[in-house]
Amino acid sequence: MTEQKIRIGIVGARAYTARELLLILARHPRAQVAVLQARVDDPVPPGDVFGVLRGMDLPDIVDVDFSHLPADLNAVFLCLPHTAAAEYAVPLMERGLRVIDLSADFRYGSLKTYESVYGVTHPAPELMAKAVYGLPEIRRASIIGAPLIANPGCYPTAVILSLAPLMKRDLVVPGTIIADCKSGVSGAGRTANDVTHFCGANESLKAYKVAEHRHESEIEEQVSRLAGETHTVTFVPHLVPMDRGEYATVYAKLKEPMTADNVRRMFASYYENEPFIRLMPGSALPDTKNVANTNFADIAVRVDERKQRLIVTTAIDNLVKGASGQAVQNFNISYGLPETMGLV
Amino acid sequence: MTEQKIRIGIVGARAYTARELLLILARHPRAQVAVLQARVDDPVPPGDVFGVLRGMDLPDIVDVDFSHLPADLNAVFLCLPHTAAAEYAVPLMERGLRVIDLSADFRYGSLKTYESVYGVTHPAPELMAKAVYGLPEIRRASIIGAPLIANPGCYPTAVILSLAPLMKRDLVVPGTIIADCKSGVSGAGRTANDVTHFCGANESLKAYKVAEHRHESEIEEQVSRLAGETHTVTFVPHLVPMDRGEYATVYAKLKEPMTADNVRRMFASYYENEPFIRLMPGSALPDTKNVANTNFADIAVRVDERKQRLIVTTAIDNLVKGASGQAVQNFNISYGLPETMGLV
Amino acid sequence: MTEQKIRIGIVGARAYTARELLLILARHPRAQVAVLQARVDDPVPPGDVFGVLRGMDLPDIVDVDFSHLPADLNAVFLCLPHTAAAEYAVPLMERGLRVIDLSADFRYGSLKTYESVYGVTHPAPELMAKAVYGLPEIRRASIIGAPLIANPGCYPTAVILSLAPLMKRDLVVPGTIIADCKSGVSGAGRTANDVTHFCGANESLKAYKVAEHRHESEIEEQVSRLAGETHTVTFVPHLVPMDRGEYATVYAKLKEPMTADNVRRMFASYYENEPFIRLMPGSALPDTKNVANTNFADIAVRVDERKQRLIVTTAIDNLVKGASGQAVQNFNISYGLPETMGLV
Amino acid sequence: MTEQKIRIGIVGARAYTARELLLILARHPRAQVAVLQARVDDPVPPGDVFGVLRGMDLPDIVDVDFSHLPADLNAVFLCLPHTAAAEYAVPLMERGLRVIDLSADFRYGSLKTYESVYGVTHPAPELMAKAVYGLPEIRRASIIGAPLIANPGCYPTAVILSLAPLMKRDLVVPGTIIADCKSGVSGAGRTANDVTHFCGANESLKAYKVAEHRHESEIEEQVSRLAGETHTVTFVPHLVPMDRGEYATVYAKLKEPMTADNVRRMFASYYENEPFIRLMPGSALPDTKNVANTNFADIAVRVDERKQRLIVTTAIDNLVKGASGQAVQNFNISYGLPETMGLV
Repeated sequence: MTEQKIRIGIVGARAYTARELLLILARHPRAQVAVLQARVDDPVPPGDVFGVLRGMDLPDIVDVDFSHLPADLNAVFLCLPHTAAAEYAVPLMERGLRVIDLSADFRYGSLKTYESVYGVTHPAPELMAKAVYGLPEIRRASIIGAPLIANPGCYPTAVILSLAPLMKRDLVVPGTIIADCKSGVSGAGRTANDVTHFCGANESLKAYKVAEHRHESEIEEQVSRLAGETHTVTFVPHLVPMDRGEYATVYAKLKEPMTADNVRRMFASYYENEPFIRLMPGSALPDTKNVANTNFADIAVRVDERKQRLIVTTAIDNLVKGASGQAVQNFNISYGLPETMGLV
Repeated sequence: MTEQKIRIGIVGARAYTARELLLILARHPRAQVAVLQARVDDPVPPGDVFGVLRGMDLPDIVDVDFSHLPADLNAVFLCLPHTAAAEYAVPLMERGLRVIDLSADFRYGSLKTYESVYGVTHPAPELMAKAVYGLPEIRRASIIGAPLIANPGCYPTAVILSLAPLMKRDLVVPGTIIADCKSGVSGAGRTANDVTHFCGANESLKAYKVAEHRHESEIEEQVSRLAGETHTVTFVPHLVPMDRGEYATVYAKLKEPMTADNVRRMFASYYENEPFIRLMPGSALPDTKNVANTNFADIAVRVDERKQRLIVTTAIDNLVKGASGQAVQNFNISYGLPETMGLV
Repeated sequence: MTEQKIRIGIVGARAYTARELLLILARHPRAQVAVLQARVDDPVPPGDVFGVLRGMDLPDIVDVDFSHLPADLNAVFLCLPHTAAAEYAVPLMERGLRVIDLSADFRYGSLKTYESVYGVTHPAPELMAKAVYGLPEIRRASIIGAPLIANPGCYPTAVILSLAPLMKRDLVVPGTIIADCKSGVSGAGRTANDVTHFCGANESLKAYKVAEHRHESEIEEQVSRLAGETHTVTFVPHLVPMDRGEYATVYAKLKEPMTADNVRRMFASYYENEPFIRLMPGSALPDTKNVANTNFADIAVRVDERKQRLIVTTAIDNLVKGASGQAVQNFNISYGLPETMGLV
Repeated sequence: MTEQKIRIGIVGARAYTARELLLILARHPRAQVAVLQARVDDPVPPGDVFGVLRGMDLPDIVDVDFSHLPADLNAVFLCLPHTAAAEYAVPLMERGLRVIDLSADFRYGSLKTYESVYGVTHPAPELMAKAVYGLPEIRRASIIGAPLIANPGCYPTAVILSLAPLMKRDLVVPGTIIADCKSGVSGAGRTANDVTHFCGANESLKAYKVAEHRHESEIEEQVSRLAGETHTVTFVPHLVPMDRGEYATVYAKLKEPMTADNVRRMFASYYENEPFIRLMPGSALPDTKNVANTNFADIAVRVDERKQRLIVTTAIDNLVKGASGQAVQNFNISYGLPETMGLV
């Protein structure tokens, strides 16, 4: 007997993250894409928007209109800019749909931080308390059955995974965390401009939003919560001439002297049963190439013992573990499905 | 005694071709950039538009306004879309300025072909007869002292150079020329869209405008003129994930059997004194990398003797020999300067 | 009840094609990787050779030694250079194993052509008659149950698919076929040299082996066989700065005037039930990006009616439809499995 | 009257750095390339090694043999691995030639550090005292007339320039410097292997030699010398999929609270007359693209005031300011020529 499919919708279906969701869900035995919406004048086949989707059995992308959602829909992925996501989440949740939001709208515990960092008024602050932060490796229990999941930012995913085992044991000196991150151009989204133009991005490496990127506050809130004390993070993102991939090089001072082996064992223990964490063996280091198109986070731990400084390097695919793959992982957990379904 | 500088202006100073002109002219001992114009709200330093120009001693880019041109200006380079270029050329020429136009407006002998191919009414057909086609290797004599030079298209430059020695001797069977061309993304200009977006262009190779690109007619007119009989050309351009560089692979049937050696000697003789043609020795083949940032055209000749088919491969930098370098070459010839000034 | 797995081995397990096979077979419900061999000093986990394979449940790569093959092995994929493949095929076939050979050794009907083109003595000419040419879209029937399948070259796959519907009806004028092909660097294999070095390949486009690439003869033999008359092909490959992807732009003269619509309909009919052929709709053209990591061949047909010239563009992933994906497609057909198993 | 040329030689003429030297020296009005040596079986034209050099008037590259150096040679650039450089420097200096060494052999004040870090015995320790560290922005005076110049490493160039104004005033807290650096693949040299293979490097970002790269010690020695107290540096290099370009993101704690404006003014004052330092205006940040093929170092200064942390970003072209351009800058200074000759 075939089990019943969970019928899902995607709003914002022209985003890169929507394309990735569709590629992943095509291999998912329990999810069925029932509706695709985006701001379009006329219905358009997904294959006309993303040629890689040609030939797949998918509904056309239609204009955003919640009055025409299928009656038997179960869950919706929101691939929308912030504030639009929260606004749309309200009517969807009122209809009893589970919502997995890939925007920043429900990532924060603190309304004040969100509104200050994003410079907007939150459209649905009453939903914030219902939302869970969807980083399974640190919040799995709360994701089960959750009606509203805030999918983490791509940079926070890589940085928090680099630190979680240590923060949990409160081993990091506050004020010493530096996260030097590097992202492929798809991290900048589909907006076409001088920066994302091939001739602007190719043969170009550059920092941007030095110590003023919004993800800094998201990281700070989560690592502080893990540690049980306030941590600041200096976060500097860089744009790299590659399509996909994200790399975090995280530096911190340890509260007590530890060898690299000690720290590595701590990570190995903390991530022991995680299906998507690959701790690098021996002298191997993460490489974005090795996680491309996968939901893996590859992590290597080093301690510069002479300087008592921790150095963790983590590679993820920003569009998969950093966005759509993690969204499906959260979807699986939420519905009690095997966590890796559709993802390996 | 220092010789007097020729004072030049650039209209359309925000184009890639303008950036290349400025980089070349910075090394040119006889040219001085006196004015830069483009559609801008406020004057802007060129270094703010193209960071590579920072620190160079250049005037700000000001809004297009011919009533404020310096009194002692000598020549103007037009880095503008078609029709805009012809429109602007009129008042500039009336003021006695020499014009080097990088658009298609004055490349055609036939007004009818131009208007049909570009789908517009020519704004200044009366100037067409004054214009010379600025491909020095085939029209050098007419460029000397010319008041209006039509800088060739990038693809036509590569394709015509691949064929000229044979066309001149009428050795090619009409109807057999195929030009399979490949261009880096800068050939698509600064317009930011899904195609020029890094994530659209990277790891992507694709044909476009198959047998319907406007340059096809420009090539046909020029090779027919060289041969003294009508030739058609099948021209298929492709977009390649690189910044700059253009490659023409040209196929044709020869009217009489020739060995590769024969053809090679013919090319060697035809291009003997050309400072910017490098005929590949032995088994070497052109590579866009080897002509990047140079005004060279690297050419290799092959004959598939079993099939009596000529195969010529030519590499140029689309922004230099295919645009701004050739414009300076034309400028040098026009003013009687050493042809390579500023270019090697 | 779970169906029994078909146990397979890979010899030459350090090749890019072996990595692709392992990625595909990991999603294949009926294949099980039982043994991996390559020239290695000590057994090595596949994840140490290709980081992307880390964490997969795979046997170590051991040195080539057919005396230690598992007793219940069913089939072997050979990812080896030519002559080595044929040499190894002999003992494997004697043990009753099915062999899918990714080298050129069994692709030819003519021993003479093979030995002349490859400049070697064939190590196992007696097996040539048992081999089938594994391009399912033109030879599906003969692949069913075949004990020895010669997986086609990557270029021939793209070029033959561009021409098959027309050759079958003998609509192409002999001597007029030109195949201008472009390949990503993985097509050059894992050999590290000046050409495959990032600084040699990046920002570089270049032709190589102009009209002297070995695949030319393979294409000629197959299209002649389809047409029932001798065709020559002028084949010029180019190296493009991308990882994977192959593009064929094929030109030919038609024996009788046809419109683009006519030709398109003919292709649509010929490829009607093919699961891996996507005929481009409307004005769309193939793009290597859209077939990356898939077994699809995207094909667009054009006729330059003014010049009566056919232009077909085809994009494949050289490592998938051009190698390992097609090998699995052949494996599926050979064993009577659904043809798309593991491939979509 | 034309001034006499300084006749120079290059040993190790097949290195990327030699190619860059030849491109720069071709525009240098006072230098003449008199001899090119490398380990070659037969003399080879430079254009056969690097196609970009075709057509340039250069001597063939001959085998290394100091008994056949031109009698009127003045200076030699060494583009050699460490130890080979020092070994060759001895006979060259005995002949009275000025030596500009691009290897690490003479970069250290401490023999012990050099021998420990490089794991070798120094072949010519007696020359170390004669050598000057050729970073003009901090050691210009000592370079004038110097007989032996140790050209700095590419990473140290970027990192030291990021810190020099602050170290000079002793404003940085020891033990807090972190240099997170990113380099294009040419930084890994011409060696062809899995890492430099296009398919290994493209779409790949990875850290390497985390806190164990040899340049760490070179940086530590120089910044300590500038500050007059011992500083340690945590240095993590990353490989980026681009040809050329190097980016340093340097973090440090300041000894006393300073605003970004204060620090910026300090940098502006320190680098006021430097022809190759471009301090970024306003919100602009360095971009490797903007310094490609130039000798510029683009520097931006930030202070995360909330966390009292300095963040400096610096971009250079690793082959120019990071190697051959700086070598010519040193050559110019050494000979009393205008420092920018051949470089702008």
